[in-house]
Amino acid sequence: MTELAEKSGDFIRPFFGQPDLVVETKEDATPVTLADRGAEQLMRKLIAQRFPAHGIIGEEFGSERADAEWVWVLDPVDGTKSFAAGCPLFGTLIALLHRGKPVLGAIHQPVLRQLMIGDGSSTTLNGRAVRIRATARIEDATILTTNVHSPARYQHGTAFDALAARARLFRTWGDCYGYLLVAGGWADVMCDPVMNPWDVAALIPVIRGAGGVITDWQGNDPVNAKSIVAAGSALHAAVITALNP
Amino acid sequence: MTELAEKSGDFIRPFFGQPDLVVETKEDATPVTLADRGAEQLMRKLIAQRFPAHGIIGEEFGSERADAEWVWVLDPVDGTKSFAAGCPLFGTLIALLHRGKPVLGAIHQPVLRQLMIGDGSSTTLNGRAVRIRATARIEDATILTTNVHSPARYQHGTAFDALAARARLFRTWGDCYGYLLVAGGWADVMCDPVMNPWDVAALIPVIRGAGGVITDWQGNDPVNAKSIVAAGSALHAAVITALNP
Repeated sequence: MTELAEKSGDFIRPFFGQPDLVVETKEDATPVTLADRGAEQLMRKLIAQRFPAHGIIGEEFGSERADAEWVWVLDPVDGTKSFAAGCPLFGTLIALLHRGKPVLGAIHQPVLRQLMIGDGSSTTLNGRAVRIRATARIEDATILTTNVHSPARYQHGTAFDALAARARLFRTWGDCYGYLLVAGGWADVMCDPVMNPWDVAALIPVIRGAGGVITDWQGNDPVNAKSIVAAGSALHAAVITALNP
Repeated sequence: MTELAEKSGDFIRPFFGQPDLVVETKEDATPVTLADRGAEQLMRKLIAQRFPAHGIIGEEFGSERADAEWVWVLDPVDGTKSFAAGCPLFGTLIALLHRGKPVLGAIHQPVLRQLMIGDGSSTTLNGRAVRIRATARIEDATILTTNVHSPARYQHGTAFDALAARARLFRTWGDCYGYLLVAGGWADVMCDPVMNPWDVAALIPVIRGAGGVITDWQGNDPVNAKSIVAAGSALHAAVITALNP
């Protein structure tokens, strides 16, 4: 996983800050760049060479052997809107599933050279253990989300706005970098009302390994969830209550 | 100015991502770290050695000879909340005033090693010329602000919320990094409803040098303004209209 992160990062890094990066905009308004495509192709090739029996699910090039015992889940640039806007709040997500369950996850910020890896029982940042901090009250918390104008207004609506207004600090420091800040003990809560499977898998072992709780917006199992709330345990319960009045 | 940016950046960089950086919280809820204080002391010493007759206005250590012909304005860490939260959206602001007018400004992001310098007629990023992009419509624009829950609700209220909802992309990628993204042609509009004099001075020659317009929230002269709107000329007029219905 470290090799996948480092080699994809070496590929992505020179694109950061370049103009006119977007080469296509998908139906869900997600932009795609040459960095996304090239980094995913590079990781697929590395996996195929080393583990030819493993499956791969990628954001850009779909699924191969998705029912294999071991499956890699790749999102080469999570936060493409940030990336294309010259903002460093993006990263590469890599997960390894065993019989469908994420057992290893990585969030890699290639420009800042921050590699966070979690296995569900421990999480490290550049090799050093990290822990979610023990903030107990929403009023003392830094709460993050990706987009305050998310289309998923059915849940990212007035209850979320009221929660955000109670926070000590509320920012759209989003996409995978928000989870890195939470797992690293710099921020307290990350809420995302719209998630894709390739976004979620890597986050689960990272957040749990740092001592945190990760569920969907209603408090359910996060595997294949379409929304995510990640926080320390005391705060997570308070946030789920606040989001579902 | 380059020397001030590089030497203060070398001082600030190792603090980024460290835990428990905040050593004091000021009356306006602004946190202060050892990086703020040390970097400002370092810059004050460099200026005093080279230009003993020049004045200095700094966020942390106040004013000396503020009525001198040449005065330096220093904000060692603009975006201290981001900095203390492990988020790279912060930077050092340095301005040089001649008879009270900002003639040279710098925004420096020391971790990403991005140094933007403007003199009102040209602006460079790491030595290469940058230009504000020519987005004309709010619906096509990336609009940034520092804080959606700003205390200055009298202007950062419903008109701002309506403006933000019209934008193609709206994010709290704030403090000085938002202006760097606008001047560099990656984002279109930066709106800040609450500004301090040490925050504003450096931004004026940077934004103007990149071909942009910078005023307060009502479209007035930005020198010593208590709020700021920065954008390309066509879009700036549309934003001021939208903010003052």
